Amino acid sequence: MSATMKIISTTERAAFYKTLYSRRDTRGEFKNDAVPDEILMRILDAAHHAPSVGFMQPWDFIVVKSPEIKKRIKAGFEAAHKEAAALFPKDKQAQYQSFKLEGIVEAPVGICITCDRSRTGNVVIGRTANPETDLYSAVCAVQNLWLAARSENLGVGWMSIIHHDCLKAILGIPEKIVPIAYLNIGFVSYFYEQPELEKKGWLPRLPLSSLLHWDGWRKKSKCLQDTEHI
Amino acid sequence: MSATMKIISTTERAAFYKTLYSRRDTRGEFKNDAVPDEILMRILDAAHHAPSVGFMQPWDFIVVKSPEIKKRIKAGFEAAHKEAAALFPKDKQAQYQSFKLEGIVEAPVGICITCDRSRTGNVVIGRTANPETDLYSAVCAVQNLWLAARSENLGVGWMSIIHHDCLKAILGIPEKIVPIAYLNIGFVSYFYEQPELEKKGWLPRLPLSSLLHWDGWRKKSKCLQDTEHI
Repeated sequence: MSATMKIISTTERAAFYKTLYSRRDTRGEFKNDAVPDEILMRILDAAHHAPSVGFMQPWDFIVVKSPEIKKRIKAGFEAAHKEAAALFPKDKQAQYQSFKLEGIVEAPVGICITCDRSRTGNVVIGRTANPETDLYSAVCAVQNLWLAARSENLGVGWMSIIHHDCLKAILGIPEKIVPIAYLNIGFVSYFYEQPELEKKGWLPRLPLSSLLHWDGWRKKSKCLQDTEHI
Repeated sequence: MSATMKIISTTERAAFYKTLYSRRDTRGEFKNDAVPDEILMRILDAAHHAPSVGFMQPWDFIVVKSPEIKKRIKAGFEAAHKEAAALFPKDKQAQYQSFKLEGIVEAPVGICITCDRSRTGNVVIGRTANPETDLYSAVCAVQNLWLAARSENLGVGWMSIIHHDCLKAILGIPEKIVPIAYLNIGFVSYFYEQPELEKKGWLPRLPLSSLLHWDGWRKKSKCLQDTEHI
């Protein structure tokens, strides 16, 4: 029997939503307690059970614990961060530079998630009209890992301020493999109640109702109430 | 106090993993029962609480219930599906064509998730070195929605076999907005115990251990056991 109807109960659903809504992007809150390998393997396995286009499972996971490698990644961040700061309007630069945007060295574990676009050949079910869907599958693995980590009370920060050529050189990633995300992972002192950039006034949370369309862009045939956050 | 340490308990974690591991890509299993708007809003709100680069929240959600629009999307699928079939090697074409790859018309709800790359201006925290990260944020919203739907016992199918120009024309999506995913959503008769393409012998599940690297690509300093699936 290949089919099942495994029901998620109301209590289980509440636990799921609690996990989802309390997930944060973690930068300055890491503690240096080691992450047990058993837990690390659970969140990697959760990532591996993300959906993937044509079931190609295009991801790989590079687990980084070496302080030496973290130091090199941090240097790569610093170079890209300096370039980035110069791009912001003058009145935003000070605030941009005041943010702590990564926990590369403090977090006990780093995980680089990559995409091998040729893993199952050139023709992939579901990728034929939209070649980017394999990259998107690897992003689904990132989000599965992130939520699974939160269920383990681990913080995760997606550190995207580094050039991929730099990351590939440091980690020895082959030319044809695409880095998707570099994540910093560890236990934390606390989780922010709101996203840090919202809390600190960088940008507000948009009202959900402003993002909804019905049967076509901006054809609003009705307007549902925003739900309360759980 | 902006900080909290909301602990996820062992029981809550088990509920989270149950949801994650029982999520499937749903195509032929939809029932036509309506999805209550209250539930629809919960899964949309879950999507809206995905992580986004620089907190830009670049997503919009086009909810499709109109049978007429679904019919046009189905026609778009059929055209792209026919093109796709011709790309597979001769010995794979019959099997490819035997798969049911979408539930566009049967699913009571469709949701198109898009990305507005210019939502918060040209310079976005965290996007400076990697411009694709806004698209990836919208994919995180897809995965949040998909898991939230599973927690509501709803099936979701990501239907990627359609050209974006076609989808944009049908839904009236502006030129500068990027479609990320078109999802079919509804209650289901059952969920497969394994991914359908695995069950039907298209591709096997890869061993997690074959996807793990330690401190650099293929530098395996140790080998942990694969965990059991929960």
